[in-house]
Amino acid sequence: MEADAVIVGAGPVGLFQVFELGLLDIKAHVIDSLSAVGGQCMELYPDKPIYDIPAAPVLTGRELTDNLLRQIAPFEPVFHLGQEVTTLQRRADRRFDLETSLGARFIAKTVIIAAGVGAFQPRKLKVAGIDRFEGNQLFYRVKHPERFHGRQLVICGGGDSALDWALDFVGKAESVVLVHRSESLRAAPASIAKMKALCEAQAMQFIVGQVTGFDVQGGRLSEVKVAGADGVTRRVPVDVLMVFFGLLPMLGPIVDWGLDMEMRQLRVRDVATFETGEPGIFAVGDINTYPGKKKLILSGFHEAALAAFGAAAYVFPDRKVHMLYTTTSPKIHKLLGVETPVFD
Amino acid sequence: MEADAVIVGAGPVGLFQVFELGLLDIKAHVIDSLSAVGGQCMELYPDKPIYDIPAAPVLTGRELTDNLLRQIAPFEPVFHLGQEVTTLQRRADRRFDLETSLGARFIAKTVIIAAGVGAFQPRKLKVAGIDRFEGNQLFYRVKHPERFHGRQLVICGGGDSALDWALDFVGKAESVVLVHRSESLRAAPASIAKMKALCEAQAMQFIVGQVTGFDVQGGRLSEVKVAGADGVTRRVPVDVLMVFFGLLPMLGPIVDWGLDMEMRQLRVRDVATFETGEPGIFAVGDINTYPGKKKLILSGFHEAALAAFGAAAYVFPDRKVHMLYTTTSPKIHKLLGVETPVFD
Repeated sequence: MEADAVIVGAGPVGLFQVFELGLLDIKAHVIDSLSAVGGQCMELYPDKPIYDIPAAPVLTGRELTDNLLRQIAPFEPVFHLGQEVTTLQRRADRRFDLETSLGARFIAKTVIIAAGVGAFQPRKLKVAGIDRFEGNQLFYRVKHPERFHGRQLVICGGGDSALDWALDFVGKAESVVLVHRSESLRAAPASIAKMKALCEAQAMQFIVGQVTGFDVQGGRLSEVKVAGADGVTRRVPVDVLMVFFGLLPMLGPIVDWGLDMEMRQLRVRDVATFETGEPGIFAVGDINTYPGKKKLILSGFHEAALAAFGAAAYVFPDRKVHMLYTTTSPKIHKLLGVETPVFD
Repeated sequence: MEADAVIVGAGPVGLFQVFELGLLDIKAHVIDSLSAVGGQCMELYPDKPIYDIPAAPVLTGRELTDNLLRQIAPFEPVFHLGQEVTTLQRRADRRFDLETSLGARFIAKTVIIAAGVGAFQPRKLKVAGIDRFEGNQLFYRVKHPERFHGRQLVICGGGDSALDWALDFVGKAESVVLVHRSESLRAAPASIAKMKALCEAQAMQFIVGQVTGFDVQGGRLSEVKVAGADGVTRRVPVDVLMVFFGLLPMLGPIVDWGLDMEMRQLRVRDVATFETGEPGIFAVGDINTYPGKKKLILSGFHEAALAAFGAAAYVFPDRKVHMLYTTTSPKIHKLLGVETPVFD
């Protein structure tokens, strides 16, 4: 796909970047490793109130995301979710080749990195040698639940993901064993109650403990060893091991793109445009750093506005880009699809 | 009055500056030349939609102002409206002396100038020598309308202020003559219709023309000369001349404060704090300039956030100021007067 601008990250700043580019008549593609937009706001605090968005006395992460989606809708961004950028390379024609983990490929005039603290990746099970079963018998995400029907499942974790999947598989899998390090679960009370009832009815099992080892038979994972809180280590037969330990932000391939970094942040060359040392690549929001930088959503919004003008120089190299006001510009009203009010 | 921080300007950026200072536990006084808060947004486009406030797909200037007032209410700012700062001087103890046109006096540790395009002043009638009647027979604002009852009034202007006052004085004044340079008026259609009906009924008079001169009798303004669009100059007897030509932003005394200026803007020394060349004086919003500056409300919001940290160094010179997040900090929740949610 040929693209004027590719935005890496669909958190609030990445979303608002769509808007600021749109005002300059630049269409954007947006890539995010999560399967939904909203970034940290949606992943970490969808229902917690935020108080420091200007002119919004109180707003949840979900409301912030919804409002931004409505605001950018006129510019019709194209989202590519559930995939990370794996390759970012400059081409001979000065544009960029980008490729994602799902194989989407772009040729972009400009790239704006709004990747926050990085791509959210599942926190891994730390048991030596078990990673070789990943994608085969060990899973951190469930894409095809029907493949696990009739199998012996061990599900690790104490949050909603672990509980919801455990409850879902009861009656479909041959067996369901939930493993969590403590009695205290971080899931919806109704789910916990349901799980306990199913355990009493012997439809599933809950073990307080941690997976510390495993056995292999015929090259396949056959059993996990669960060190119980009671000091006893149990051997649990397993066909499929699912782990839901939450998400961890990882800068991932960004660190390999040859950009100037400082303490896991991208250094910007110029706070007039938030361009990195690499011409045509901009960094906005929590991922960037410069003197005085505060990791505030509103600073990311400001950075996105200035980066849009910086990006316009690459998208329209021969055009002088003027700033127009949304309140008064008929050109902007046309882009937004709203009527220009008539005043004398 | 002793003050930690004085904000000059109560437009959106000045209002949000109260919030950002408040998060750092700094109370603010706010001075504005207009008699209401909201600055340009309220003065020039209270009912026009703004589209580029992040996470607010559409908002009028009035809604923006109202939302900001709600947001800053927990920090109890003290407003000093309808007055300009006339004096700003550094004291021997490094603090600042400020004085306003209404005589309010402050000793401030830090001053944040959020004065936009300057203090709004009425656009003056350009007739040589007529200014000597200002405040006596020539008025740009009406403070005591009852004083004009029973008098011969000439009202200049074609907007709502001129029309509203003309209609208001009909029946109370001895005579009301409205003077505007063209047939086309910029006032509410209902007011225009009412005015025309009153003219037909000979309760008032409308002359298309401009005041170009005047006569004096016994030291008092006795007549104005109105050059009509028809080429005829009429002499109109007058006791009170009112002029409503709109408001014009004037930097006013700011230009005399010895700050580094460029094209009617204050240059900031450091975009990490938006401090001017004068330590302890900050400039945020449309009044400032720096490389890449865009006159966007959202940029002003960002500048206000960073300036608050800069200001904190003067208010709490011995304290290290940390950034806390409004979503998670119990200290900020206490300042905002909200409950800290309990999460596992």
